[in-house]
Amino acid sequence: MPEVISFGEIMMRLSPPGKKKLDQTDQLEILFSGAEANVSAALAAWGVHAAHVTRFPDNPLGKAAIGAWKRLNVDMSFTSYSEDRLGLYFVENGAMNRSTNITYDRLPSSFSTIGKGSFDWDAILDGAKWFHWTGITPALSQGAADCLLEALQVAQKKNIKVSADINYRSNLWRYGKDPGEIMAPLVALSQVIVAAETDTAKIFGINADVNDQGFMEITNKMKEKFPSIECMISSRRESPSSSRNNLSGIASDGHAVLRTRTYEMDNIVERIGSGDAFIAGYIYGCLQQWEQYKTLEYATASAVMKHSVEGDVNRASSQEIIDLMNGDMGGWIKR
Amino acid sequence: MPEVISFGEIMMRLSPPGKKKLDQTDQLEILFSGAEANVSAALAAWGVHAAHVTRFPDNPLGKAAIGAWKRLNVDMSFTSYSEDRLGLYFVENGAMNRSTNITYDRLPSSFSTIGKGSFDWDAILDGAKWFHWTGITPALSQGAADCLLEALQVAQKKNIKVSADINYRSNLWRYGKDPGEIMAPLVALSQVIVAAETDTAKIFGINADVNDQGFMEITNKMKEKFPSIECMISSRRESPSSSRNNLSGIASDGHAVLRTRTYEMDNIVERIGSGDAFIAGYIYGCLQQWEQYKTLEYATASAVMKHSVEGDVNRASSQEIIDLMNGDMGGWIKR
Amino acid sequence: MPEVISFGEIMMRLSPPGKKKLDQTDQLEILFSGAEANVSAALAAWGVHAAHVTRFPDNPLGKAAIGAWKRLNVDMSFTSYSEDRLGLYFVENGAMNRSTNITYDRLPSSFSTIGKGSFDWDAILDGAKWFHWTGITPALSQGAADCLLEALQVAQKKNIKVSADINYRSNLWRYGKDPGEIMAPLVALSQVIVAAETDTAKIFGINADVNDQGFMEITNKMKEKFPSIECMISSRRESPSSSRNNLSGIASDGHAVLRTRTYEMDNIVERIGSGDAFIAGYIYGCLQQWEQYKTLEYATASAVMKHSVEGDVNRASSQEIIDLMNGDMGGWIKR
Amino acid sequence: MPEVISFGEIMMRLSPPGKKKLDQTDQLEILFSGAEANVSAALAAWGVHAAHVTRFPDNPLGKAAIGAWKRLNVDMSFTSYSEDRLGLYFVENGAMNRSTNITYDRLPSSFSTIGKGSFDWDAILDGAKWFHWTGITPALSQGAADCLLEALQVAQKKNIKVSADINYRSNLWRYGKDPGEIMAPLVALSQVIVAAETDTAKIFGINADVNDQGFMEITNKMKEKFPSIECMISSRRESPSSSRNNLSGIASDGHAVLRTRTYEMDNIVERIGSGDAFIAGYIYGCLQQWEQYKTLEYATASAVMKHSVEGDVNRASSQEIIDLMNGDMGGWIKR
Amino acid sequence: MPEVISFGEIMMRLSPPGKKKLDQTDQLEILFSGAEANVSAALAAWGVHAAHVTRFPDNPLGKAAIGAWKRLNVDMSFTSYSEDRLGLYFVENGAMNRSTNITYDRLPSSFSTIGKGSFDWDAILDGAKWFHWTGITPALSQGAADCLLEALQVAQKKNIKVSADINYRSNLWRYGKDPGEIMAPLVALSQVIVAAETDTAKIFGINADVNDQGFMEITNKMKEKFPSIECMISSRRESPSSSRNNLSGIASDGHAVLRTRTYEMDNIVERIGSGDAFIAGYIYGCLQQWEQYKTLEYATASAVMKHSVEGDVNRASSQEIIDLMNGDMGGWIKR
Amino acid sequence: MPEVISFGEIMMRLSPPGKKKLDQTDQLEILFSGAEANVSAALAAWGVHAAHVTRFPDNPLGKAAIGAWKRLNVDMSFTSYSEDRLGLYFVENGAMNRSTNITYDRLPSSFSTIGKGSFDWDAILDGAKWFHWTGITPALSQGAADCLLEALQVAQKKNIKVSADINYRSNLWRYGKDPGEIMAPLVALSQVIVAAETDTAKIFGINADVNDQGFMEITNKMKEKFPSIECMISSRRESPSSSRNNLSGIASDGHAVLRTRTYEMDNIVERIGSGDAFIAGYIYGCLQQWEQYKTLEYATASAVMKHSVEGDVNRASSQEIIDLMNGDMGGWIKR
Repeated sequence: MPEVISFGEIMMRLSPPGKKKLDQTDQLEILFSGAEANVSAALAAWGVHAAHVTRFPDNPLGKAAIGAWKRLNVDMSFTSYSEDRLGLYFVENGAMNRSTNITYDRLPSSFSTIGKGSFDWDAILDGAKWFHWTGITPALSQGAADCLLEALQVAQKKNIKVSADINYRSNLWRYGKDPGEIMAPLVALSQVIVAAETDTAKIFGINADVNDQGFMEITNKMKEKFPSIECMISSRRESPSSSRNNLSGIASDGHAVLRTRTYEMDNIVERIGSGDAFIAGYIYGCLQQWEQYKTLEYATASAVMKHSVEGDVNRASSQEIIDLMNGDMGGWIKR
Repeated sequence: MPEVISFGEIMMRLSPPGKKKLDQTDQLEILFSGAEANVSAALAAWGVHAAHVTRFPDNPLGKAAIGAWKRLNVDMSFTSYSEDRLGLYFVENGAMNRSTNITYDRLPSSFSTIGKGSFDWDAILDGAKWFHWTGITPALSQGAADCLLEALQVAQKKNIKVSADINYRSNLWRYGKDPGEIMAPLVALSQVIVAAETDTAKIFGINADVNDQGFMEITNKMKEKFPSIECMISSRRESPSSSRNNLSGIASDGHAVLRTRTYEMDNIVERIGSGDAFIAGYIYGCLQQWEQYKTLEYATASAVMKHSVEGDVNRASSQEIIDLMNGDMGGWIKR
Repeated sequence: MPEVISFGEIMMRLSPPGKKKLDQTDQLEILFSGAEANVSAALAAWGVHAAHVTRFPDNPLGKAAIGAWKRLNVDMSFTSYSEDRLGLYFVENGAMNRSTNITYDRLPSSFSTIGKGSFDWDAILDGAKWFHWTGITPALSQGAADCLLEALQVAQKKNIKVSADINYRSNLWRYGKDPGEIMAPLVALSQVIVAAETDTAKIFGINADVNDQGFMEITNKMKEKFPSIECMISSRRESPSSSRNNLSGIASDGHAVLRTRTYEMDNIVERIGSGDAFIAGYIYGCLQQWEQYKTLEYATASAVMKHSVEGDVNRASSQEIIDLMNGDMGGWIKR
Repeated sequence: MPEVISFGEIMMRLSPPGKKKLDQTDQLEILFSGAEANVSAALAAWGVHAAHVTRFPDNPLGKAAIGAWKRLNVDMSFTSYSEDRLGLYFVENGAMNRSTNITYDRLPSSFSTIGKGSFDWDAILDGAKWFHWTGITPALSQGAADCLLEALQVAQKKNIKVSADINYRSNLWRYGKDPGEIMAPLVALSQVIVAAETDTAKIFGINADVNDQGFMEITNKMKEKFPSIECMISSRRESPSSSRNNLSGIASDGHAVLRTRTYEMDNIVERIGSGDAFIAGYIYGCLQQWEQYKTLEYATASAVMKHSVEGDVNRASSQEIIDLMNGDMGGWIKR
Repeated sequence: MPEVISFGEIMMRLSPPGKKKLDQTDQLEILFSGAEANVSAALAAWGVHAAHVTRFPDNPLGKAAIGAWKRLNVDMSFTSYSEDRLGLYFVENGAMNRSTNITYDRLPSSFSTIGKGSFDWDAILDGAKWFHWTGITPALSQGAADCLLEALQVAQKKNIKVSADINYRSNLWRYGKDPGEIMAPLVALSQVIVAAETDTAKIFGINADVNDQGFMEITNKMKEKFPSIECMISSRRESPSSSRNNLSGIASDGHAVLRTRTYEMDNIVERIGSGDAFIAGYIYGCLQQWEQYKTLEYATASAVMKHSVEGDVNRASSQEIIDLMNGDMGGWIKR
Repeated sequence: MPEVISFGEIMMRLSPPGKKKLDQTDQLEILFSGAEANVSAALAAWGVHAAHVTRFPDNPLGKAAIGAWKRLNVDMSFTSYSEDRLGLYFVENGAMNRSTNITYDRLPSSFSTIGKGSFDWDAILDGAKWFHWTGITPALSQGAADCLLEALQVAQKKNIKVSADINYRSNLWRYGKDPGEIMAPLVALSQVIVAAETDTAKIFGINADVNDQGFMEITNKMKEKFPSIECMISSRRESPSSSRNNLSGIASDGHAVLRTRTYEMDNIVERIGSGDAFIAGYIYGCLQQWEQYKTLEYATASAVMKHSVEGDVNRASSQEIIDLMNGDMGGWIKR
């Protein structure tokens, strides 16, 4: 029985090789990825039994997608299928002062057309310790939001800890509902919230200055509105260029603020997926019952290591991440 | 001013390298292609001023697509743009006794959402000699059918010759209309019809035996129903395997039947696009004012050569095609 | 619980791209493969719950190998790990009149160093219907032979059907034992034997003419020596060149001989793995409780289709195989 | 009718993948490029109707070259053909402290053998607003210099603004003439001069210190010698390594000096083509009738963005360049 | 001291991957090759100490070229360098009924500008048994012809056997001399002539029917004109398509004609270089002092095997060739 | 006769493309490399006649390996062959804070099974000026240590200078002997020792602080123990990340310490092989009879340039290295 269950869409990612743009290439590198599934894949790489729940089209693309995720050691036993298409996104990798650029071709995917009753949550969540969702799922369709709510209600009944990366994507939310309205009952069933100030502002109108004090303020306001919340976490990023970023982690339970060391990241290999690696690291620390500070440092080091591997999914081992926490900056060959 | 105008959707084609299937690869080769546009590209390669009329999404994929078609020397001056997506299709190349397999991800594309008034046909068709369409366009949406009808009416007014490859695709026609009903007014404005017995049977219920006599019968029945029709042409294919096919051409004006020599094709490089190369060859012969027999032989040799080049578009030069007609089987190095 | 259990080594295969030789390339294409595991992978592709039992080194290569096999939908729950190396083989793909050439670098692999007690066969075989092994495993080491015997004894107790591809590889059997002596007790616990006349001759000194009559003779002699045997099966191959082979199937229960149609295979994509696809097809038919003739035709068509896909593992769907049995030679595009 | 006309040679560029040297590879990446054509391609990418005038060999390489430039949306209607060869250059990409290294194989190309009367300049320049040339063309052959002079005389008659990147290449000028003598009448018909102190020194013996004051001095000396000149512009580069450069822009009309901000460029993707992107940016600003300062900032930001894309041609959109001018350093993903 | 010396130009070959044409690719596969050097490389692969004499440009391309030939185990000790360029040729691989197409970009190469005195033939030929040249060298320039004559005169003095593949290339011979006049003194110093009827006809006006009788006639006429000639050999090819050829060998000493078996070659991998493999095989048989029939069969089998490997150079081992002579058609995997 | 002889194993290196890990790829880039052979290859690239002595398996891998090293211009005349396997190592390239990771698959290779008498050292060392070995060879097997001792004794007799990179690899030394015991007689026959403090500490228990003073101390202790030693050299590295290192050189003869400038290396292309490039540079300076300071600067610049080229072998020319010593940081294009 899986310890951790994630739930969300898996799409095909298509990107030109190297730093090419889409009109410069006649081949695309592909992989399969999703914000929530990336969390399960990272946990699986660290030895946690993690399952991801999703729906694929019943065609060669869906078949390729599920194979790719089994290869990542994620439990895909709960996968269902429909006649729709697989969501896609095209990534042009940035460099220097040119941003990484994503073109979505997402709807109407086989995942977005799910609804209440699409999954047997009682069976799926049986014995699990942790459930993870993101703000992308309810942003896709009313059906997806309904299906998620159902899952969260079961999770609550079963006393499963719930984390939510509530990141707000302005290019979604196309089905005519107010994000705040849809999100409120979902957040109200969650304990660990990953969010930056812009997310709480855009979804719930909850604002504060972007600093340590402000983060605690926001945490308190969120806890007030959603008493289920235990803590809020986020990564802090400075982005002097597409190839060079600085990263640290922040967490608050409303009483205090924790900050990690700041990593200067140069020669970034891949810009995408570090947020997913961050929350994966946080969940891992919680499952290991580490103290908060160590957990947050692991989450941050995981997010940093993510920038050094290709693809959306963290492939760094927990040993590599712990080495980095302990000051091994990776400059020596390991034989 | 372009001599030939083609009209239809251009999609992105994605295929695994070599003979791999989609679940065996992490990269896809891409190109851009469309049944009608392929005709203009072949004509352009032979020195004809050919323009293709289509609509792309206004995003990096649309930009890549138009560049690809300009590279093929096709006049893309009449391109328009919309906010929708680019249609896609995934091709797993067959080999030996395994068929080539296509997975479409086509709707709702920026082309399929066109309608009456989307293009200024009066300006576009000004001075043209030939207009080419296929049965795919009216199969996409009512709007696409309407837009096509509009074009054909202008073509008739301007005395432009019209060819139609009426091939019937059962996986299209999803918008609830009867193919025969939609197709009738379109075919009624066309002079050269590319069709096999299965096409006329499925669309108009016009049947006959699949032999020379039957082809003449069908031509007569079609001419009776659609007096605009001057002749029907088709390629004849035997398919002992995915790598080995035999091909010849047939044509009838209702009075007689023309047959070409039969080519035994071994080591087929690419199975897709030979029908488009066939009609392109036929149009080329007509524009050159060749007699019917030479025109049909050129069309057939063009279809054969298409199987020897990668991609959907014929890249063989007219010299190479004429050499083949003259018995040069390609066995010697050309220095 | 898996229906089918296969047992054997999985190696990394490294081959130059296309038709290159090893001294012509600076990159190698890799995949992971093993004669027995290939059987489970084919069955898994057809929807059978199949598990493969093996041992990998506990290093990045072992990690890559297990991921590759999970991707193929094979149940790898019973995998164990050791400190040894992963076996390798280098393949130079043949063409025309040049043979495919394999260079092994196999010992001492983490699989070959297994022994009695390495696996908990009682748990692994619990609920299974079929167990598959080949003559490669006992040829690797005494420990591998011992471990296999142990498995077969448990299988007998549990009334699990056992198939054995007893193919004889002269470049193995390096540990100083007589193949016949080692093989006898193993074959004595098996019911379905895949073998050609050369195999029985080299291992057990059982000879006959290579024709239908001879195959029945050999079956009878084998059954006499090993009363557990129910039938013998084999594929028959003519090899006019590396790119062109003819293939049919043969089976005998000692009373009669079944022969399938003969397939002429041209433009062979991959020469390796068709024997594994053959026995996989046979097991599939048995599990479906098809009559012998249909089972043998399916096995043969599976072996044929294998030659059309890249890599050692059959990726053709059961639908594609049945289509071929029904006369669809693959010459038409499937849309 | 094109707004901008550029004139010069287009060559095939061949480079080993990544950071390999020519003796480390068995494949080369190719593209087609020329200092003047790169300017038209950048302008075309920003929506300007730009045409390039050149001559190609009438063979498959010339055919590939013209297709590549049509793909870049450049108007190639004025292309002519001859029997000569296509010029080539081989690029070994530098890294860290290793310089990018170019090996030319340029003469006798189909462009270098042009002469007076090769092009119908009166027709080509009809309705144009801007003509661009570089010091490479007159350095190739007397015929190329003559042909350029003819163009400039027509441009003057038609009141077309002329820009000239007079960069001096010591490995050219092989036909026995003094650069200064050949260049003088050409520069005397130009208004915007791109040049650094080394160029004016080597060609015309005009020297000054390399600083702001010196640049104004040189501008004045050049204006004195060539009264047609309105202003001089140049990019300023510091090069601490092959991967890291600093870049700013400078311009003078002889009365004052404009300087832009300095960009620190790290992780440079491609070292070649930034000068062409600079002058393209300058022309763009002039066509937009922006004030000088904004024009120079755009030119400089364009040169910076060029270092972030693969190939010789700027593919950054005008929006991306303007974002950079406005302080967006590219560190965030654009969705 | 090398046993065999070959003399001639080595060029860089550039070809699109697979069956693509030059306007369909953005990468080219490269290798280095020359008709005469290919002979030495084949001999070196079979264990003969073979040296090739040539001149390269003193630049990164020349450096890459010499490395490539050292890798092939050819003795390159006698290489010299000059300031010119490396000759190039572009190959578009044919398929089915489309011919392989070569575009040369050959002159003025560093080899073509050699002349009398460029090499110290006395030292180079010291101790050698065989010298090989082809009709390409004298076709390049007067200097190349002079240099070759010098070599042949030294070879005669040293009693070295000389073979000449006198193949006539109409796209060469651009320096204004009559091929027959230049070739006569060269052939007059050679003993083994590789030539088909078209070659002797075009160079020396010596004609006959293309059959066994005709070949003997031509041999006699050649021997009459050039008493040094001992025998003439040639391969006979039928070319039903670019992918399928039939090949046999023929030889005559003027008294009799030898014919080998005919090989039907299907799925040809590479069309180029089989003539060089043929003469290499012939030289090998002579060095082994095999009887004529076996020598000619080896030469023919070598030419056949050449079609199964990528690139211009034969990489088949002598064992593989002898296996083919002995009837092993390559249809079985070699482990 | 070669001036420099190196002796050691050459292995096949296999690495995923770019920054991928082994479980993310289906192709591997290969090359052949060895710590000692890398020294000869660097020297050969600079024009020194260098030979490498090793043993390969007599199979296609050994054949590929020797070809690769001939291509590098290294004299491989002394190569011998055996029936064993080729050693392998798998490299996952690090990036940012992720280390480069090597997985060895080395034993029992055809080199490791050599022994006394495997090579005719008297003939091999005839006329040589320098012999180079590393601590890897004696760490492989007793036989390899014996064979090396034999070579060193012959070198001493012939008065050949000996350099030894005594680097200690904890994952070797598996044959049950104490490193110090085996190494002592070998070091006792060497003059130039490349070692850092950790090496002398782990092998001989000789410790000191890691600073200039400490390096001199260690040199003195080593000279005391091994009077043959003339000097010790080492590179000093700071490793803030996998992509960014600082490098300088140090040398001591026991009386004084030399230090070079420190290079800040950013955007490191390849982390492996810089130690070999360092000692190659040192040997080169000695052969040129440069003074110590220049020699050490050249060695250090060579080590720096190595980080800018792909693969284990230095491909920078001596001119490029000298340019770097003279302050050319590589920031300008060389045309």
